[in-house]
Amino acid sequence: MLTDRVDDGVIAVEEILSQTINTDVNLLRDASLHIVDSGGKRLRPRLTLLSYLAAGGQNISEVVPLAAAVELVHTATLVHDDINDHSLTRRGKISVHAQWGRTFALLTGDYLFTKVYELMAPYDATYNILMADACVKLVEGETLQAEAAKNGSIDRETYKLIIERKTASLFQAAAKMGALLAGSEESIVENLSQYAYFLGLAFQMVDDVLDVVGDPDVLGKPIGNDVVHGMGAIVNQNGNTVLDRTKVTEKDPIKIMLAQLRESGAIEVAKAQASEWAHHAQVALSGIPESPARDELSSLIDLVVHRNR
Amino acid sequence: MLTDRVDDGVIAVEEILSQTINTDVNLLRDASLHIVDSGGKRLRPRLTLLSYLAAGGQNISEVVPLAAAVELVHTATLVHDDINDHSLTRRGKISVHAQWGRTFALLTGDYLFTKVYELMAPYDATYNILMADACVKLVEGETLQAEAAKNGSIDRETYKLIIERKTASLFQAAAKMGALLAGSEESIVENLSQYAYFLGLAFQMVDDVLDVVGDPDVLGKPIGNDVVHGMGAIVNQNGNTVLDRTKVTEKDPIKIMLAQLRESGAIEVAKAQASEWAHHAQVALSGIPESPARDELSSLIDLVVHRNR
Repeated sequence: MLTDRVDDGVIAVEEILSQTINTDVNLLRDASLHIVDSGGKRLRPRLTLLSYLAAGGQNISEVVPLAAAVELVHTATLVHDDINDHSLTRRGKISVHAQWGRTFALLTGDYLFTKVYELMAPYDATYNILMADACVKLVEGETLQAEAAKNGSIDRETYKLIIERKTASLFQAAAKMGALLAGSEESIVENLSQYAYFLGLAFQMVDDVLDVVGDPDVLGKPIGNDVVHGMGAIVNQNGNTVLDRTKVTEKDPIKIMLAQLRESGAIEVAKAQASEWAHHAQVALSGIPESPARDELSSLIDLVVHRNR
Repeated sequence: MLTDRVDDGVIAVEEILSQTINTDVNLLRDASLHIVDSGGKRLRPRLTLLSYLAAGGQNISEVVPLAAAVELVHTATLVHDDINDHSLTRRGKISVHAQWGRTFALLTGDYLFTKVYELMAPYDATYNILMADACVKLVEGETLQAEAAKNGSIDRETYKLIIERKTASLFQAAAKMGALLAGSEESIVENLSQYAYFLGLAFQMVDDVLDVVGDPDVLGKPIGNDVVHGMGAIVNQNGNTVLDRTKVTEKDPIKIMLAQLRESGAIEVAKAQASEWAHHAQVALSGIPESPARDELSSLIDLVVHRNR
């Protein structure tokens, strides 16, 4: 029954997404639908819906627009990321910038972001402040990552700062907004917020591992993207750079870098780190009352850590 | 004394802008300061401040963050526009993308936009809904413009639709938010809103004329940019395309197109259109009570129509 309610929530999120991005500017509508309809995992809106329920919320439809807004932030960043990464595919489909060109991809990302703002605007200041803060952090994280990529190396501390801002912040806001809207007590909001923060860290670490060892067909996007952008270097045992992409001069450096990385033992270290963060998420979750929604949040942790896409 | 109050308001806007864009991510801080400190006309925040005063507002400091947010929307779009237009200069300085590269310019524009959201978030839903709507329209207008540019021609109706969305919407929101925050009656809010809408149309029309006949040194940016992007074609007497950039095959088509346009009589038609809109702005303004702020809003119309930069 819980699954029904959450699945209904996700369906309602999809409907709001489609309605929200509709516009008489055909190109924006088509490009937005292309990426929104390309079937992401919808992990972030699920977090909002489940946190709302786990915090005692009764009327799931009131939290749906918030959940949709969270997914739309993520979608907007994918469109801009793909421009910066020159990625030709996303979720197994052609990327927006490959299909419509750079100018329109830039505008589509901007458009999706203004639509986040439109969805959020009717909510109280509390939610808008939380969401604005997460969006600021997200762009800061992306920028730190692009800087690290340009420098060709990165240390462990910077890596954590990057994934905190670019991924964990939005996860955290997603859960916190859901819990707050349920009107639950502060300790529950705080525990769900902590849970989502660690889930976000683990999620991103696994994402970066999949970028090295994943199957591009299963992932629906090319691998090695983050490695070539300097991110792979983080998963070293001693917190030092395993490889320095500025020293790789071959024409196809990604293959070589991926091989080096796989042989370095770094993947195992990264997986252990993800498990540690997953454990912290589990501990935070144990601080809230038992419920079917809590069980599902708990199983999300395993899903995130053991996924292959 | 009014001038003192407004100038104090603008100084307070500058302070908020500098504070707001501060971050520990040095690159975002530097690139944001570069564009924010490059001395724009600050026309939009002036509109917010003056509308607040003209509508009877007493405590100008309460409206300052709104005015700053409006300027920041404009600034964010400049950074992204310059990427799409490949402009190397802006406000007489090197553009963000020319200085920091495309990836960081994209992220800087995103960052400035998230900071708009951060500034607006503490305000009531009314203001956030207005601002979100203006931002959506702005991106829609930019997209319609980019589409017209790609097609190489444009008709008069589409031109008006473009400038309504990309320019007049934000002017309108700027004035309306100021008037609403002053707590004035609906007819005053409506008149100020209409005034700003027509001022925005006139402003953009003059901007496009300056793109053809202006002095690049005075403007602080290259001319012919909009012409080469298909915008110049609008100012034809019969509403048809004066020139078709897809037929201009010379290596430096801008010069030729500018010359054709200057000789076509289109500039005079465009100026007449701007004057008509300026008149509508004046009429709307006459619907609100006399005040020093109203006088200043009135003189803004002349400033916008007769400017050379």
